[in-house]
Amino acid sequence: MADALKVGIAGLGTVGASLVRIIQNRANELATTCGRAIEITAVTARDRSRDRGIDISGITWFDTPERLAAEADIDVFVELIGGASGAAADSVKAALTRGLHVVTANKALLAASGVELARIAEEKSVLLNFEAAVAGGIPVIKALRESLTGNTVSRVYGIMNGTCNYILTRMEKEGLSFADCLKEAQRLGYAEADPAFDIEGNDTAHKLAILTTLAFGTQIAADEIYLEGITNISIEDIHAAADLGYRIKLLGVAQLTDSGIEQRVHPTMVPHDSVIAQVDGVTNAVAIESDILGELLMVGPGAGGDATASAVLGDIADIAKSSPGAQRVPVLGTPAASLAPYKRARMQSHEGGYFIRLTVADRTGVFASIAACMAENGISLESIMQRPKPDAATDTPKTIILVTHATTEDSVRKAVDAIKAENYLVGEPQVIRIERPKAF
Amino acid sequence: MADALKVGIAGLGTVGASLVRIIQNRANELATTCGRAIEITAVTARDRSRDRGIDISGITWFDTPERLAAEADIDVFVELIGGASGAAADSVKAALTRGLHVVTANKALLAASGVELARIAEEKSVLLNFEAAVAGGIPVIKALRESLTGNTVSRVYGIMNGTCNYILTRMEKEGLSFADCLKEAQRLGYAEADPAFDIEGNDTAHKLAILTTLAFGTQIAADEIYLEGITNISIEDIHAAADLGYRIKLLGVAQLTDSGIEQRVHPTMVPHDSVIAQVDGVTNAVAIESDILGELLMVGPGAGGDATASAVLGDIADIAKSSPGAQRVPVLGTPAASLAPYKRARMQSHEGGYFIRLTVADRTGVFASIAACMAENGISLESIMQRPKPDAATDTPKTIILVTHATTEDSVRKAVDAIKAENYLVGEPQVIRIERPKAF
Repeated sequence: MADALKVGIAGLGTVGASLVRIIQNRANELATTCGRAIEITAVTARDRSRDRGIDISGITWFDTPERLAAEADIDVFVELIGGASGAAADSVKAALTRGLHVVTANKALLAASGVELARIAEEKSVLLNFEAAVAGGIPVIKALRESLTGNTVSRVYGIMNGTCNYILTRMEKEGLSFADCLKEAQRLGYAEADPAFDIEGNDTAHKLAILTTLAFGTQIAADEIYLEGITNISIEDIHAAADLGYRIKLLGVAQLTDSGIEQRVHPTMVPHDSVIAQVDGVTNAVAIESDILGELLMVGPGAGGDATASAVLGDIADIAKSSPGAQRVPVLGTPAASLAPYKRARMQSHEGGYFIRLTVADRTGVFASIAACMAENGISLESIMQRPKPDAATDTPKTIILVTHATTEDSVRKAVDAIKAENYLVGEPQVIRIERPKAF
Repeated sequence: MADALKVGIAGLGTVGASLVRIIQNRANELATTCGRAIEITAVTARDRSRDRGIDISGITWFDTPERLAAEADIDVFVELIGGASGAAADSVKAALTRGLHVVTANKALLAASGVELARIAEEKSVLLNFEAAVAGGIPVIKALRESLTGNTVSRVYGIMNGTCNYILTRMEKEGLSFADCLKEAQRLGYAEADPAFDIEGNDTAHKLAILTTLAFGTQIAADEIYLEGITNISIEDIHAAADLGYRIKLLGVAQLTDSGIEQRVHPTMVPHDSVIAQVDGVTNAVAIESDILGELLMVGPGAGGDATASAVLGDIADIAKSSPGAQRVPVLGTPAASLAPYKRARMQSHEGGYFIRLTVADRTGVFASIAACMAENGISLESIMQRPKPDAATDTPKTIILVTHATTEDSVRKAVDAIKAENYLVGEPQVIRIERPKAF
């Protein structure tokens, strides 16, 4: 049997502690499967004395990730610290430069510096694996980077934030408001005390930026993502969606168009009989549409200590099983030096169906005016309906819901502006994009 | 750049022709991604002169797969012939013995001889890849063999036969009979002229046997699978399932139990709000439940020339990207020499819920008798209902439907035998097992 693979772990939070436990408890199985032992020889964390329920007594302790990366006797540096800069970035870079393999779960770091890190890894012929960085336990990185080799991807999209999907699912199933569901998510530990990063879509955007590069072979462009969170989704939208045969999900979508690549994160209506519409709660799902394989959808846990540790362990095992030297798995699917520039498609050019909910004063001619604004902007309607409130007086504001056939973002914005100028709107109009899976 | 990877392809049917076309058309992209060119240097097929819409003029032709495997100047032998024995088996064995990497889409060969072939591959330190052999384009082999390293799998199950899923979906959506849907599937090319291999469950069983070995690290045991096809599923069952909140799918299920491993292929009722219930038509889906990762579900095309070729190409690319010599990816997840004996769990010990449909003479006391037979065998009922036919005369046979709480196969068989002995049954009772996804 070959020499043991020596692993250093920086960060002993939930994921790190889970990883240590699994590698220790399953040493024999791992050695059999990988053809060599996997041995944790170095660790570092903020607090050495904290009880994590794991035994690190025989493992060399380092006071900082940077020192572990620079000095430890290891083959693989595992970064579970988090953050786009600071210790995580410095130690990963140091480890790669030293010629160590690196495994990380750090989406922020990859979204910010993935190409630079990939270049170093490829120069040094080491692996930089990051399955856990996107959609937790779902092996979407492996699918894009390995299984789909030779395919031209046309679209990748998914539910990549468990907090948002949990909130939207509870709103729908229990008729609760966004605010109530957020509180419940916080109580259960599914949402942070400051939930903005999740519910505004930033977390999904980091993950999407990584998938875009893997799917389309372009530079990472995490700052060029159209972003819209779920804070404005009301229970009324969810009910209207259900009536029309849709469910609302926060999707990250990257799509190849004639004018460039669309990257967008926004609440999305998906047909209720599509498979992805059935993905509820904190569960994640990622779909990839490509020209040879067709459509592939993967559903699984997007977070959690064990699920994330499982993905990290899979990455470590891939390194243990591979032969040393001459690594040819490009970190980002395409070698870093060959990544094409990212060309952003204008959001105004986005084509698709739209759901538009308007609250209007009860006035003669409103229906006709709305229809005219749509027609003047070349938008053809799939349905237009007024939702009566059974107990409302006749002169209270009415809700009108439109669903358009495929049109452009530009046309919809112009039509909505024209409607706004007519002065019968009560409150802001709601606009939700519709996304249709290709095969299922 | 490293030397080109030289590939020999045996079999130029739909998949083989698609593979040749893709490798030729995407030569530059593949070379960039893999760090070396992929070059087809040898081919063989039954008929040299047939027009396949591909250019094989510059490729060395061999008259038999065996000669190609033995003599061609290649690094990888790709077997797309099919069949558990004969040319496919002989040529794969010859190629491995010669120290060539092998890629195959041949489930029958692996189900019959997978362990023997894995042993040769591991002795020779070459790769034997077979992603296309199970669920076509869905990367389930990679997930089990690589991503889930370190996990203990408790259950793997899936929709792995597009013909059956197409028939069941059409029966449900259009209220057509099994026979009509089978005819339609044959007309559209989704079913063979002799459909027995698909509709009796044998095709699913081959695939399941391979997954079982990957999931549980046991010897392949394709002959020890409980098998029940879909020919007895009636439109009445499908309607009753829908009323009860279930859909009927042909599942292959392998499950770890206290007394061994269950391998079973049978029509199965899955809750209609589970994600897998939403998988319609020829689409396949495979779910894996494991202790660290949790549940993972993958949905995609299970057949078709291009989707299968995509999986084969992914396997070839993995070889192109890997370093020569010292391969440590065990062919079947666990090294062939370390596979445990397969211990079959008795089907009688299977635990789960059951759907039982009885047609009974309209006689006083039948309901009470059925309830007594259930109780005497320790079966507790979740629901019992009589489905009236609005236009039926009062003395015509009645349909009674039972859904049990978790019980054993043994108890259900005994209860049904006891009911049969009471002589009020009209026709054979229908028994369908219920399967519940763990997480979604």
